[in-house]
Amino acid sequence: MENKFVFAKEIVKEAGDYILAHMQEELHIERKSSPTDLVTRLDKEVQNFLVDRIRSHYPDDQFCAEEGCLRASVGYGSVWVIDPIDGTNNFVAQGEDFAIMVAYFENGVGQFGIIYDVMKGHCYHGGGAFQACLNEELLPNFKDKPLRDFLIASNAGMLETNAWGVAELANASLGVRIYGSAAISFSKILSGQLLTYITYLQPWDYAAASIIGESLGYQIVTLTGEPVDFQTRQPIMMVPTDKLAEIQSYIYERK
Amino acid sequence: MENKFVFAKEIVKEAGDYILAHMQEELHIERKSSPTDLVTRLDKEVQNFLVDRIRSHYPDDQFCAEEGCLRASVGYGSVWVIDPIDGTNNFVAQGEDFAIMVAYFENGVGQFGIIYDVMKGHCYHGGGAFQACLNEELLPNFKDKPLRDFLIASNAGMLETNAWGVAELANASLGVRIYGSAAISFSKILSGQLLTYITYLQPWDYAAASIIGESLGYQIVTLTGEPVDFQTRQPIMMVPTDKLAEIQSYIYERK
Repeated sequence: MENKFVFAKEIVKEAGDYILAHMQEELHIERKSSPTDLVTRLDKEVQNFLVDRIRSHYPDDQFCAEEGCLRASVGYGSVWVIDPIDGTNNFVAQGEDFAIMVAYFENGVGQFGIIYDVMKGHCYHGGGAFQACLNEELLPNFKDKPLRDFLIASNAGMLETNAWGVAELANASLGVRIYGSAAISFSKILSGQLLTYITYLQPWDYAAASIIGESLGYQIVTLTGEPVDFQTRQPIMMVPTDKLAEIQSYIYERK
Repeated sequence: MENKFVFAKEIVKEAGDYILAHMQEELHIERKSSPTDLVTRLDKEVQNFLVDRIRSHYPDDQFCAEEGCLRASVGYGSVWVIDPIDGTNNFVAQGEDFAIMVAYFENGVGQFGIIYDVMKGHCYHGGGAFQACLNEELLPNFKDKPLRDFLIASNAGMLETNAWGVAELANASLGVRIYGSAAISFSKILSGQLLTYITYLQPWDYAAASIIGESLGYQIVTLTGEPVDFQTRQPIMMVPTDKLAEIQSYIYERK
């Protein structure tokens, strides 16, 4: 597994270099499911690059990836979960606050995750048998404090409508942030800069963070407290296990 | 004025170095007007450092500053407007996404502004007779695009309650971000990464951005479209003059 992990970090770094080399060119922006659901040629090219590199080294491995129709279930065999550019709107409008995410599973068990904030050069990696690190530095285990001393993150729509009580949790915390990228939000949790992140996500949005965070005391669960399914878009939160009950006293389905 | 501007940039850089040298020490966090309105010993020490340095060079100049009771009006004489740490909650909880802001006025006319994102080492400076720059690079003039292609920023409370129609504007844009710092939000407008920032602010929160932004095609006005008063806490927005009318079609007081 060590070799596979080293290989994965190498190709993610190469994919980041590819983005840096091409992000000033015409991006061929398209809108997918809605006017604010953007995809660029670089999302597709980076995904193809990663899939091709993995296939040439590990021809029997399967994929679940954001762009196109690679939708293997993580429950069986060797499966790579890929989000080539998470935070595409930030990528297009700001040229920062986006990341490449890769996670690797064997028969449903997460082996490692990688979140690469390309513009900052910050690579969060680890999980499974590997220590959770930011670049070469060990990431901190969750350290408890009162809710009032933590910042939280959510998506804008849930905050606007107080869906699942997100606004109530925000008002009991030190404040709420909206970064427009799951990867950026998760990486701030992994760094101890945020308590939780609450939003609707697809498997490729949370798979890497889920694996990396486990060894630091975090878990990703649905907003009803169930395990995530790694298959469909679900309302989810990443939370420290030590803080789950307190957060659940705010976050539940309002009838 | 050139000398004063160079002096101002030097002391702001020194203040940033002071923060970097002391931010790992005990911060003596206090809560001011509310449980989420934090101040630390470094807010006070940085303000004292800046005021002392300016007084020793320019003994007749006046001050309007966040901490304590320096509240000169910018309308008369030589006045420095100082926010020693903008984004104190980010500073405390995240150790990044905060900034030092300094603005200088003579008889009501802004001469220059400085926004220093300490952790990134990004110094936004200029306005008045000086070109607007990020470190040594010229900042871009506002470039128009459709509203749907721009991200915007606001504060969380206004988004939660759709105060002044902020949520409606957010929903017509590419998305809304909440960074928890006026300085960080303004600096992203100055870099062309955000269209507008809508919130309630005090003069020291917006003075620097107001002066720097003017030469790039931006203005800061109240949400009723009036000039800001540089005296009281007001609902304000920084907007490109070219986009003011379109934004005002969303942002107005709901009866």
